[in-house]
Amino acid sequence: MTPAHSLDEHRELIEAYLKRIVFNRELGFVDGVMRYALSGGGKRIRPVLCLATGEAAGGDPEELLIAASAVELVHTFSLVHDDLPALDDDAVRRGQPTVHAEFGEATAVLAGDALLAQGLYLALTLPMVEPARELADATLGMISGQYRDVKERGDLLDLYELKTGRLFEAAVACGLWVARVPQIDHGPWRMFGKQFGLLFQILDDIADGDGVVAELGRDEAHSLAMSTEARARLWLDEIDADTSLLDELLSGLKRRASLAGN
Amino acid sequence: MTPAHSLDEHRELIEAYLKRIVFNRELGFVDGVMRYALSGGGKRIRPVLCLATGEAAGGDPEELLIAASAVELVHTFSLVHDDLPALDDDAVRRGQPTVHAEFGEATAVLAGDALLAQGLYLALTLPMVEPARELADATLGMISGQYRDVKERGDLLDLYELKTGRLFEAAVACGLWVARVPQIDHGPWRMFGKQFGLLFQILDDIADGDGVVAELGRDEAHSLAMSTEARARLWLDEIDADTSLLDELLSGLKRRASLAGN
Repeated sequence: MTPAHSLDEHRELIEAYLKRIVFNRELGFVDGVMRYALSGGGKRIRPVLCLATGEAAGGDPEELLIAASAVELVHTFSLVHDDLPALDDDAVRRGQPTVHAEFGEATAVLAGDALLAQGLYLALTLPMVEPARELADATLGMISGQYRDVKERGDLLDLYELKTGRLFEAAVACGLWVARVPQIDHGPWRMFGKQFGLLFQILDDIADGDGVVAELGRDEAHSLAMSTEARARLWLDEIDADTSLLDELLSGLKRRASLAGN
Repeated sequence: MTPAHSLDEHRELIEAYLKRIVFNRELGFVDGVMRYALSGGGKRIRPVLCLATGEAAGGDPEELLIAASAVELVHTFSLVHDDLPALDDDAVRRGQPTVHAEFGEATAVLAGDALLAQGLYLALTLPMVEPARELADATLGMISGQYRDVKERGDLLDLYELKTGRLFEAAVACGLWVARVPQIDHGPWRMFGKQFGLLFQILDDIADGDGVVAELGRDEAHSLAMSTEARARLWLDEIDADTSLLDELLSGLKRRASLAGN
């Protein structure tokens, strides 16, 4: 049996869903700011990972779209706050002004808050509570990773596991919860998600020439990427389901990075 | 039957519970910052309102403490972010430096985020999902109110209903959900919570000489406070339960304000 949707179809589904998503009606102007942040032309890797996982595990497509959108809202919250002047101080993201550059800092703080609360609220419209728990918990890990990144540093891979890995693992886990996969069977899927997130971050560093490249040199960073990808694929082999789309998503990561950075 | 706990006992219970509460173990330094924000000697009015409501409605005391603490975490998140330089720019709160004044702006943004995520996560440890939903939704209303306060203004009472009233209503509603009160019976309780929150804000303005006092004058503000308290009490009369503690909490509001401001 081949997967019901291709990666491109998943990407189109999530784009369409995010466009028609309804936020809390009291939000007023902040609603538009949230949509501005969401519309930045991102690659939607986390929600596609959630959809591809959940479909491979037999989840309901409509429920999976809710979970995947919740993941993207939480991810977007983290971008809006990370871009703030007090944190990474980025004025441009993917060629368009960041939220605080466009709307001011106060609005960016509040719109980020709203994206987090709305993401968790959205997850709470699902018929099971675990995706919301998963996302709230991953958010705490992610915040801790961002704190270390801005303030402490320390071991870079530990930091990446929190800052990037936690939400990738949560994206996978949300797909599993929606598909009613019991926690005892989450192991290899989650390990795949973690390694996937780590690879994503390492390839990002290779493209930008910073992070692990600055710390270990380009050759070491490349072999770290290769071993991380190999580990991800080993976990995929442990899974008793059609994971061909996840395999394709993994290969796509590397291809995009080699186009961008080498 | 008299209430099982006095208001002071509720206050002590919530203080003790907040002290021994366990946060996500990945938080590291941010954990301490969250506790700093929580320990500011607040009056704990929202969690006490939650406990008094839930107890009047027959809720389990341990579950009520979880819900009440979740309310206080969400409230504290809003304080930490509202105090930021880009928003209200307050360096002192209740005689101690605000979080950004003590730890810097980046840490305050992240600790605020963590308080919100941890508050919702805590609510998600309850055996029912509604308190978490209630809090996420109230947070969105509150954010919208804060946005209007900083950026738009407009009708002050509409703004207060969002900025203050939504979380007071949610505090009441969380107590009801924990006590398994069906939504159809929430009406008068929630209306009481709204009016209580509005009165809290009006009395705050009277104490500080701003807000409704600046807009309507002191006499008008006083009569608004009186009519709001009367409305709150009318809703209390509609409730078929021992609401003597809620009545006492309402009277206590006015007494504190008259000590502070007149």
